[in-house]
Amino acid sequence: MIESRLPIVRTVADLRSVTATWRREGKRFALVPTMGALHEGHLSLVRLARARAGRVVASLFVNPRQFAAHEDLDIYPRDEAGDAALLASAGCDILFAPAPGEIYPPGFSTSVSVGAVSEPLEGAVRPHFFGGVATVVTKLLLQALPDIAVFGEKDYQQILVIKRLARDLDIPVEIIGGETVREADGLAMSSRNAYLAPAERAIAGRLNAILREGALALERRRPIETAEAELKQHIVAAGFSKIDYVSVRDAEDLTPLPHATVDRPARLLAAAWVGATRLIDNLPVMATPRAVNDV
Amino acid sequence: MIESRLPIVRTVADLRSVTATWRREGKRFALVPTMGALHEGHLSLVRLARARAGRVVASLFVNPRQFAAHEDLDIYPRDEAGDAALLASAGCDILFAPAPGEIYPPGFSTSVSVGAVSEPLEGAVRPHFFGGVATVVTKLLLQALPDIAVFGEKDYQQILVIKRLARDLDIPVEIIGGETVREADGLAMSSRNAYLAPAERAIAGRLNAILREGALALERRRPIETAEAELKQHIVAAGFSKIDYVSVRDAEDLTPLPHATVDRPARLLAAAWVGATRLIDNLPVMATPRAVNDV
Repeated sequence: MIESRLPIVRTVADLRSVTATWRREGKRFALVPTMGALHEGHLSLVRLARARAGRVVASLFVNPRQFAAHEDLDIYPRDEAGDAALLASAGCDILFAPAPGEIYPPGFSTSVSVGAVSEPLEGAVRPHFFGGVATVVTKLLLQALPDIAVFGEKDYQQILVIKRLARDLDIPVEIIGGETVREADGLAMSSRNAYLAPAERAIAGRLNAILREGALALERRRPIETAEAELKQHIVAAGFSKIDYVSVRDAEDLTPLPHATVDRPARLLAAAWVGATRLIDNLPVMATPRAVNDV
Repeated sequence: MIESRLPIVRTVADLRSVTATWRREGKRFALVPTMGALHEGHLSLVRLARARAGRVVASLFVNPRQFAAHEDLDIYPRDEAGDAALLASAGCDILFAPAPGEIYPPGFSTSVSVGAVSEPLEGAVRPHFFGGVATVVTKLLLQALPDIAVFGEKDYQQILVIKRLARDLDIPVEIIGGETVREADGLAMSSRNAYLAPAERAIAGRLNAILREGALALERRRPIETAEAELKQHIVAAGFSKIDYVSVRDAEDLTPLPHATVDRPARLLAAAWVGATRLIDNLPVMATPRAVNDV
């Protein structure tokens, strides 16, 4: 067994005394916020952070404010010692793992909310979600004040929301997205994949291939409406029990595209259920020049 | 005429290049946010800032987001050159005077809101107000990242809201309140006093004396309900045309006091109109030990 030698800090004051030292030494440092239950996707973010900054702090905080009452807060997987060992192996310098009371002390009553880009898709299905994310990410960014912060592109809309709030609130940080890491069959790595029974895992593994087919069709000028309808059929046919959304959106602000085909950088985003487990995934869709007779 | 030699910066980038220099030199610095139309009250905040930090930046930004459509945004007094000269005379080192587009560029869509302490009093009468204040103050604090920020106690509830958001969002700054500066008759200095016609000015000057009498009565165990009713009568009798509120509250969180008399540090706060001009003022009320027969 590999023993983790990763230093763990529990308070904002201790975190700041570490980052203040780095700052005095003139070192750039990166923050990689996580909810733990780490997998190769997280570790790739730590490596990306490491390549871009001299020091890396990861945070581990399962944020109760981004779960609704009926969601999986209580069963969300937790293994701090295992996570710390993985982080150390990926080049992380320190883990910030605060208790909920350190993040939300008595009397806490401030919230950060982001408008337009947080409203569709995840925001429509999980109305509490981005308020919780925006507030806790603002706090983590201001607690650490890193030069850069790295988030996974699997949560594509989340990155856009975080870029928006960092820009709008003038948080002096560069937000960087790290590419989604996938299993051999294309399934996006996710802590929630642990919930999948073997038969569900097989169904889940179909989602990415279906989306890739859809993205190709869209790049070959399949009308968006047609492609979205076909994608939904294929996802249901693959065995998914419910679809929250399958949607092609502007890659920058997630607004619906104005024309029948994809004529600008776009993103294909989907959320669907296998049994009691909710999966999300997304892919870029390249812009195709509009044909003369396109509406 | 004294010419201002105060350097003025218009962009966040220019502001940060100044504050980065101070930081490299190991200098502590203070931010004094203002909406311009400066008077002795503001200058006392600059002097207080100067006494507590090696460098002082003042900001001048008439924040459209804290005015409602029917309020006085368009006629709010503006005199940047005069303000700059006054700031220089009080020991300010630099003025940050951004255009609205620098603070709210296209696509801006994030807001900060503070719960409980922003809800009564000003928050009840001006529902848009503290949302606008919380968002712009968060931005100014993060643009400058000062060691301390100084606000006037005339806007007592505003200071509590700002302390709350700075603590809740982990903004690494100390919020300091500066005592209200008053005219000879006790009128709290305010940019809006310029709106008062001579007869209105005479009425306005009565408010503070009435509140001081009320505070004394409360400290002598006048029941809160009685004192508030008497204060309202006196304010109307003095010629005020309308009262928004006259209220005794817990000094820390502005909740109503639980007992009939003031038994903990409290604040007496009032907002009233003279003609078309709205005035606010507030005073501390010392705690008086409860008598045995108090309810």
